[in-house]
Amino acid sequence: MKKHASLDGLVEALRRLPGVGPKSAQRMAFHLLQHDRDGLSMLGHACTEALTKIQHCELCNTFTELSVCETCLDAERDTSLLCIVETPADLLMIEQTMTFKGLYFVLMGRLSPLDGVGPKDIHLTKLVQRASNGVVREVVLATNFTNEGEATAHYLGETLKARGLTVTRLARGVPVGGELEYVDAGTLARAMLDRRAT
Amino acid sequence: MKKHASLDGLVEALRRLPGVGPKSAQRMAFHLLQHDRDGLSMLGHACTEALTKIQHCELCNTFTELSVCETCLDAERDTSLLCIVETPADLLMIEQTMTFKGLYFVLMGRLSPLDGVGPKDIHLTKLVQRASNGVVREVVLATNFTNEGEATAHYLGETLKARGLTVTRLARGVPVGGELEYVDAGTLARAMLDRRAT
Ligand SMILES: [Zn+2]
Ligand SMILES: [Zn+2]
Repeated sequence: MKKHASLDGLVEALRRLPGVGPKSAQRMAFHLLQHDRDGLSMLGHACTEALTKIQHCELCNTFTELSVCETCLDAERDTSLLCIVETPADLLMIEQTMTFKGLYFVLMGRLSPLDGVGPKDIHLTKLVQRASNGVVREVVLATNFTNEGEATAHYLGETLKARGLTVTRLARGVPVGGELEYVDAGTLARAMLDRRAT
Repeated sequence: MKKHASLDGLVEALRRLPGVGPKSAQRMAFHLLQHDRDGLSMLGHACTEALTKIQHCELCNTFTELSVCETCLDAERDTSLLCIVETPADLLMIEQTMTFKGLYFVLMGRLSPLDGVGPKDIHLTKLVQRASNGVVREVVLATNFTNEGEATAHYLGETLKARGLTVTRLARGVPVGGELEYVDAGTLARAMLDRRAT
């Protein structure tokens, strides 16, 4: 019976969200239809807008509506400092600490050989180009302090040091095994200020 | 800074979903943008489709794309039996038990005087009209076994008995305080078969 095509379609689409199972998706769909049609409309438009407008910054690889994002275009930034993070969420967390005035590169992932995620998937060529522009002096490795994040930091550190760059790592104020996105801003600020040569 | 209008819009829209806070919304938005653009597109279309196509059945009040839903139009159904549920999710749960061959009325809520939810909000007039069509003989009250669901059942039971209808309630196989949507189908089947006069 294909009797609720639109409803089934909405439930199916909501199930694509991370952490949302069939029961939650149904509950969300009914909630929107019954109590929040404005929200349903907003969500529809927001998805379509995001899909067409949001792309990756040519320089730092983060999500942006421009070809080069506003952070990269910001003339107040210290262009000799480049901070490498795994995700845009991590970038936002570091911005919140207000301890870093340089620029960023967003890997959009981390090395994970077991999952088939290699250097190409974290945009290594683009990163090396970016870091080798003759202006960047120090690269701050701000990948997560998980096993994969540490391995990624090690790999990138070796690669970039081989090109004559100073490479630092966030201080170990971040709890071992922790993910940046869930650390409080104070701890992260401490870790940024205490970053050390690697 | 309004520098990420589309991204902020997407995060804001996702926050309208029940149980989704700011962190989850951001995580969902980044996940879709980075790993599941098809899902983002599906969600956009599904919301828009649902908004324009899904309405309430003229007879039973559930969500449908038709003016009268397929259940209400189904000639195999026993039109002398009318089961009253709080939500479309509850209706689907009862359908899954395959113990009920009558028709439904969906209240789209429950009486809750403290929250300002009165008889009008659960479509009492529409329900009384529906139950008083001269064909319905028995009304099965299948509201939740919560305090509000029980109070709603009591109120509706009195109202409908006063109009000469036989009124039954799902048997107390459903755990007290439980919500239909989260009960296993076996328990719910037992409760349907054991429904009793009230
Ligand atoms: Zn950028
Ligand atoms: Zn109907």
